[in-house]
Amino acid sequence: MSVTGPRGFVASGVACGIKESGALDLALVAAEPFGAVAAAATFTTNLAAAAPVQLSRAHLRATRGRAAGIVVNSGCANAATGARGMEGARATAAAVAGGLGVPIEELLVCSTGLIGLHLPVERIEAAVPALVAALGSGREDGARAADAILTTDTHRKEVLLDASGFSVGGMVKGAGMIAPNMATMLAVLTTDAVAAPDVLGEALRRAVAASFNELTVDGCTSTNDTVAILASGLGRPAGIDELSDALRSACEDLALQLAEDAEGTTRVARVRVLGAKSDEDARRAARGVAESNLVKTSLYGADPYWGRIVSELGASGAAFDLDRVRLSYGEIVVFDRGVEARHDRAAASAYLRSPIVEIVCELGLGVADATVLTTDLGPGYIEENMRTS
Amino acid sequence: MSVTGPRGFVASGVACGIKESGALDLALVAAEPFGAVAAAATFTTNLAAAAPVQLSRAHLRATRGRAAGIVVNSGCANAATGARGMEGARATAAAVAGGLGVPIEELLVCSTGLIGLHLPVERIEAAVPALVAALGSGREDGARAADAILTTDTHRKEVLLDASGFSVGGMVKGAGMIAPNMATMLAVLTTDAVAAPDVLGEALRRAVAASFNELTVDGCTSTNDTVAILASGLGRPAGIDELSDALRSACEDLALQLAEDAEGTTRVARVRVLGAKSDEDARRAARGVAESNLVKTSLYGADPYWGRIVSELGASGAAFDLDRVRLSYGEIVVFDRGVEARHDRAAASAYLRSPIVEIVCELGLGVADATVLTTDLGPGYIEENMRTS
Repeated sequence: MSVTGPRGFVASGVACGIKESGALDLALVAAEPFGAVAAAATFTTNLAAAAPVQLSRAHLRATRGRAAGIVVNSGCANAATGARGMEGARATAAAVAGGLGVPIEELLVCSTGLIGLHLPVERIEAAVPALVAALGSGREDGARAADAILTTDTHRKEVLLDASGFSVGGMVKGAGMIAPNMATMLAVLTTDAVAAPDVLGEALRRAVAASFNELTVDGCTSTNDTVAILASGLGRPAGIDELSDALRSACEDLALQLAEDAEGTTRVARVRVLGAKSDEDARRAARGVAESNLVKTSLYGADPYWGRIVSELGASGAAFDLDRVRLSYGEIVVFDRGVEARHDRAAASAYLRSPIVEIVCELGLGVADATVLTTDLGPGYIEENMRTS
Repeated sequence: MSVTGPRGFVASGVACGIKESGALDLALVAAEPFGAVAAAATFTTNLAAAAPVQLSRAHLRATRGRAAGIVVNSGCANAATGARGMEGARATAAAVAGGLGVPIEELLVCSTGLIGLHLPVERIEAAVPALVAALGSGREDGARAADAILTTDTHRKEVLLDASGFSVGGMVKGAGMIAPNMATMLAVLTTDAVAAPDVLGEALRRAVAASFNELTVDGCTSTNDTVAILASGLGRPAGIDELSDALRSACEDLALQLAEDAEGTTRVARVRVLGAKSDEDARRAARGVAESNLVKTSLYGADPYWGRIVSELGASGAAFDLDRVRLSYGEIVVFDRGVEARHDRAAASAYLRSPIVEIVCELGLGVADATVLTTDLGPGYIEENMRTS
């Protein structure tokens, strides 16, 4: 179960012909009975934000945080498409709003796929009646929606989490380099918690900051990234802390699924920075290590070359004193206060062959910490990214 | 000819046994007659700076910008090696200073190779007499020095430039990902211009900012990067502008040689950003495009997917208005003011198969521009970087 797990939601997925393969490419998640419920979203910070991002932002502002549904197409990002792109996003929202019998402002729109392509609006409009007719609250309905948002992901990614008295469901599709031709990370969440739009928005921001925003595959911020949530209010009221905790758990689960399904990736690494002077420094240092092509390529080769990690920490911009640094692969300490620590190199290499590894960087300068999830960099990534057609 | 081209310099290169292969691994460039001349250097900004970087910085400060020679070893970076590393750097300087009959402070030391390894000091000390005895001013002497600083570079890289009345010679070895196991970019320059240390230093900073600092291979700042220059004063006096122009030309030549010899790299791209609102914005935007794994992988595949460039510009942090942007591959305009420009995709792809390509990003917001040199990202890079042993 995913988005249809929490009470008060229906979902569907159809093939409307955007993908040449004939695969599912249009998904809808709606509140049921049809009509607006509390809603919130976080969007890409990219200044080349796609038309659907611009439209959804405007709609959420107009309704002050309420929406009746979220329509997602895959196979075309509708980004860098000018005025015609905005017309296409609006036409998509209008068609679905008509089908649900709600105002157009109550629809959020997401697109994912190649940048620069125009949306085949007629195909979408023609498919909307079937999309609305197919809406259902079963496990299969959520699964079809989760399938319809995928691009080069190898399988659907769902989560359902019970927070005693309310639940959180979600689906997601590939991020950054993971599905690079598609240039988009999208997640749609639902909950039956009772929460006002401002509480929902704040809880979502906190959850995203601690999950998706701590996943880096290539450091690229796409034109279409969107994480949106609808809250039906059919469960019990949830306070900001418990709601953000629940959303964070759901988002962490989805973020890990994203990393594991990164194309061409053979392993995931959790880069933990401890003892930084400030939160900002901790994030900077963790991101510096996690985004380094040299560190990522070592990970692919399961090569415990800690020198690259030291170098990235020193170059990260964070406060740094080599003589206080301690580095470990999992439990294996390889560097301690300025010099290599005696360690079993073969054991370190064996550890690095695990599907999920931990790189722990203790800076010894304070109490701030940060964790960033990253992936290795192998030939599969090149293969996947070198050509779009 | 390279470092021995300008009047007043000798050079040598020997194999002292740091490299297991028995290849040349110890180089010396010295002023002749032996003794201090004007000197300057720019060093890595990495806070994990290697022992030789720390020592050379201290020596230049102590002498107020004078040096008698620069000794370089390859095969070991002497970085993250603690107090023992500093002793090793000092012992190297002392041995060479003894050989030249100058104070230890007049020696600059550079190391390049694996981080974390200890320098085999006894082998270096044992080889110094032969290194000093081999010093000569011929083309072959400079070539042996240029060979002895290489790591995974495929060939030596030299330059000699005549500025009518004075000349500039130089040698360099691989940068960042290009020679990643070695984690270092080193360049040694000589000139016979007459220039005070402060003028020489300012000219070098300007030249490096416009050449090596505009080359990005993986965005990593190593622990050992050093560009050092000695000025013998045997030619004519040179003003700051003509001197920095000459050094810039020499450094640009060496930077292009670095990019072209990047391991696993099949092509070089010059990313030009024009019409940015500020110099800072221009550099940020150019660097955002040049460091993007997605853009670099497209380059490897000669795939004219301009959407990735738009996305990187929008995410770069530079002021940006998609409706004013124009993108070209060489002369082929592919995107113009918010939408795709009609273009011959096959011609764009054919252009991208050239060994050196140009990506022109016109932002249309001001008059600032910047150029960054980058390389493509292909499987050869993974191959080279996945294991250090």
